[in-house]
Amino acid sequence: MTSICPYTSFEDKANWARAKRDASVAKVEPKLEGLPAELPLSSQDLPKAVLTSKEIEITEKYTITELLSALKERALSVEEVTRAFLRRAALAHVTTNCLIELMWDEAIGRAKHLDSLPEPKGALFGLPISAKEHQGMVGPNVTTSASFGAWIGKPHGSNLLYDTFWEEGCVFYARTTQPQAIMHLETESPIYGRTTNPYNRDLTPGGSSGGESALLGLRGSILGVGSDIGGSIRCPAAHVGVYGFKPSAKRIATTGLRAANGGRETIPGCPGPMAVDRDALELFMKVAVGAEPWNIDPSITVKEWIPHKFTQPLKVAIQWWDGVVQPHPPMTRALREVADACRKSGMTVVDWDCEPLDHKGAWDLLSALYWPDGGKEVLSLIEDDGEPLMDLTKWIILEQPTVKELTQHELWKLCCQRDEYRARYAKAWRDSRNADGKEVDVIICPPYFGAASTHGNSRYWGYTAQWNLLDYPSAVFPVTTVDAAKDPKDATYTPKNDQDKFVYDLYDPETYQDAPISLQVVGKRQHDEKVLAALVEIERAMGRK
Amino acid sequence: MTSICPYTSFEDKANWARAKRDASVAKVEPKLEGLPAELPLSSQDLPKAVLTSKEIEITEKYTITELLSALKERALSVEEVTRAFLRRAALAHVTTNCLIELMWDEAIGRAKHLDSLPEPKGALFGLPISAKEHQGMVGPNVTTSASFGAWIGKPHGSNLLYDTFWEEGCVFYARTTQPQAIMHLETESPIYGRTTNPYNRDLTPGGSSGGESALLGLRGSILGVGSDIGGSIRCPAAHVGVYGFKPSAKRIATTGLRAANGGRETIPGCPGPMAVDRDALELFMKVAVGAEPWNIDPSITVKEWIPHKFTQPLKVAIQWWDGVVQPHPPMTRALREVADACRKSGMTVVDWDCEPLDHKGAWDLLSALYWPDGGKEVLSLIEDDGEPLMDLTKWIILEQPTVKELTQHELWKLCCQRDEYRARYAKAWRDSRNADGKEVDVIICPPYFGAASTHGNSRYWGYTAQWNLLDYPSAVFPVTTVDAAKDPKDATYTPKNDQDKFVYDLYDPETYQDAPISLQVVGKRQHDEKVLAALVEIERAMGRK
Repeated sequence: MTSICPYTSFEDKANWARAKRDASVAKVEPKLEGLPAELPLSSQDLPKAVLTSKEIEITEKYTITELLSALKERALSVEEVTRAFLRRAALAHVTTNCLIELMWDEAIGRAKHLDSLPEPKGALFGLPISAKEHQGMVGPNVTTSASFGAWIGKPHGSNLLYDTFWEEGCVFYARTTQPQAIMHLETESPIYGRTTNPYNRDLTPGGSSGGESALLGLRGSILGVGSDIGGSIRCPAAHVGVYGFKPSAKRIATTGLRAANGGRETIPGCPGPMAVDRDALELFMKVAVGAEPWNIDPSITVKEWIPHKFTQPLKVAIQWWDGVVQPHPPMTRALREVADACRKSGMTVVDWDCEPLDHKGAWDLLSALYWPDGGKEVLSLIEDDGEPLMDLTKWIILEQPTVKELTQHELWKLCCQRDEYRARYAKAWRDSRNADGKEVDVIICPPYFGAASTHGNSRYWGYTAQWNLLDYPSAVFPVTTVDAAKDPKDATYTPKNDQDKFVYDLYDPETYQDAPISLQVVGKRQHDEKVLAALVEIERAMGRK
Repeated sequence: MTSICPYTSFEDKANWARAKRDASVAKVEPKLEGLPAELPLSSQDLPKAVLTSKEIEITEKYTITELLSALKERALSVEEVTRAFLRRAALAHVTTNCLIELMWDEAIGRAKHLDSLPEPKGALFGLPISAKEHQGMVGPNVTTSASFGAWIGKPHGSNLLYDTFWEEGCVFYARTTQPQAIMHLETESPIYGRTTNPYNRDLTPGGSSGGESALLGLRGSILGVGSDIGGSIRCPAAHVGVYGFKPSAKRIATTGLRAANGGRETIPGCPGPMAVDRDALELFMKVAVGAEPWNIDPSITVKEWIPHKFTQPLKVAIQWWDGVVQPHPPMTRALREVADACRKSGMTVVDWDCEPLDHKGAWDLLSALYWPDGGKEVLSLIEDDGEPLMDLTKWIILEQPTVKELTQHELWKLCCQRDEYRARYAKAWRDSRNADGKEVDVIICPPYFGAASTHGNSRYWGYTAQWNLLDYPSAVFPVTTVDAAKDPKDATYTPKNDQDKFVYDLYDPETYQDAPISLQVVGKRQHDEKVLAALVEIERAMGRK
């Protein structure tokens, strides 16, 4: 399929893409009014200045379960729900630059259709779902660039996961930004520019699903679809204090999404949910796996989604640091608070000692496995099109010491090392039985070294990417916010290595004041159901529902 | 670990290996007596000439379930069972050259230990299990060459699957031959020479698990462990009329087995059972998966073994041919007989039309994916050691037109083509719903183009390797034997291509008279339990238990 964009130079194509986006956002009705002349650092107070009280109610006052009930009972029409989220998404875009397209006409058309049905139908009936751009979807006007100038205007085909959600009655209404190459833990591209954090525009919303997180962080969406190969769901969800879940690879179909490096098998990415509400994670998985995607994409693991039930108090391990970089003080405080809550609720709480597990070596292996071609395909896609190569793209390809084009035998050797590392980590789980005969159920750890970074500084992936190397399911959940009074810098700390020093130097409490701090729950490979069940238990221990 | 073999030249090392084997077989007691001066074409009448009636009873009269019961109830001692199988294995070796080691002292020592236990323990208590050489096992004297002269005398470490069986109380007593590079559908190597078929020494027992099949085909084993990446369990099982099952990849651990091309991810091999008794297949899987091997080898799919139960008559599809080579007449007769039996028992029987599914293209893709390095590692292992390169090794590497050393991008392209092909095949299953709304449960097809080939002629892998490309579980089961009266050559047939002509020319009924003819039951990826359940239904339809 050839591009529908009539231009050839990168700049012309990017202008065309931005104009298309702007025209889509401009359709919002009524127009957004009440915005201050100069946008404040935090966008959190803007919705009540711009949106109607009914829109606020629809977008803020319902859990996903309540919203689905109201839609099913037709206490709310799909159209009014859709319009509320469209307007709020437009607002999120104006304040954070999180959209590549507001699907105004398509969404309202879909909503009217659903409202016209004699009976509500499907597990997601009427639910607005926001969509990371590179995943694409069916539709006559859908194009997907996957953040490459070279692919601007390229029509999309079907996407199996999205087809499933559509069958279940959802409404797609907004498509969100991602960074160049979809391989930054921030969200900036030469096509669409920079997406900012709705809590603080000087901070990143994370990436690569940072359009989603910026949107969710302002409740311009209740459920969005991200994707994760190194932290791209979990880091952005953490940075705006929403929930995110990276399943084990091959539980959710990737059929139909667009990305570079197709056919590379070393480290698979995976789509997954990002949501303002914990229950949305389980719902997403239940619907996606329940559709038996393996009948269409036979690479998907043939395994039903069977919710896990704990029959005794959990045994959780706290990973206080990863043995490479020390998390910032608010992250350590969050770990302490959650560990205390778990202990008080009767769980067994132990430490997860990473130092013998060499997370630094794991990263060196992982970064080589991301780019078995030395990054050639991605670099060519960018450079041959005249697209500027961004610093964070250079960093993740050209500045990682182990990245190089491999021979087949070099590749095999790395794959063996990866498998040996995975076996070594499996042994650490088994060894956790030694003290009391009971294996650790989940690890609780930081999803990042601190709150969202200032722009350009997201240069340490270890806290999320570690679990991609191991293919472990992991969920993030909000815990607290940065508080200068509680989280002073430790002036006595001596960094242990260059990365640790880089991270240490980034911290001062004022920069991150009030920024969300989240944690991560990690389970063993393909124990997805168990991780989500553990998250419920942990939040209950924290006094939540 | 360095080799314990004191020699360096290939010939010296091979002599050392053969002497070691011969010394192990020579331990048999009482010595084998009653063998004719010249061995007959078929070995089937030899056991009753050589073995005691008690040995005959132990090795022939029990199903695996009955044998396990007798052992558990201590109606039979482990030692007498072990000695009977040791003697019969030695006989099988003398007639077919199927062993690389008879584990006389180790097996009897183990048997005595098990007999000395106050209570029988484990799901496999006292069961003799024969072992394909390259899988190795724990033990101070275990060496494994994986059929490479270069690795003769190399000590082995642990093998996860074997450790599991050991924990469950089995007795390892015999290790079996495999061909050079473990990549022929026959069993001959410059180290150990040729293994022959116990039904006809002019025919191959198949390969690569042909030591196992030769042993099982003379009931020198009741359950053996094979491995399969292109037919290596199914083809040999079929050629001697026993049962064999190739599970989906990653259900059974491969941790600890020795093979070349470690780290290659394109097409995984898989261990699996070969047995004289159908129920042994399910038992093997239940025990192997029940041990939760993913706790040690995290590449294994986390999925319990849950026996499948059909609630309505099966819908089976018959694959009369693969669109490339026409099976020999006895194979077509077997398909007809089984299809008729299924139909009579109330199953729905339809045709599986392969022609639109391009099995020839599938083979071209698969053979390239076997050797992403162009076969360099294996060729070097052989040639650098001064080991002669065998014709069938040349054929599978150097004479396959698509085999070449790939760049990473060429590899990715082939992986994409593989995944597209798998999706295309998945669509064929879905399309089978069109006529009556019911999807085909399993495909019944030949496991080979005919009976076991004459030596050196196993040069068409399509009937088994197709399912490795698709990662489909598949089981073989005995159906009939070649009967010149029923299976005349079709003199009017015009071969459709060179491969078809090669296969057509191989047939005349006299060459294969009385050779076993088996069929294959194939299910969708990771529907392992369903395939074994279907095999039960199909055999019941055939009037078996």
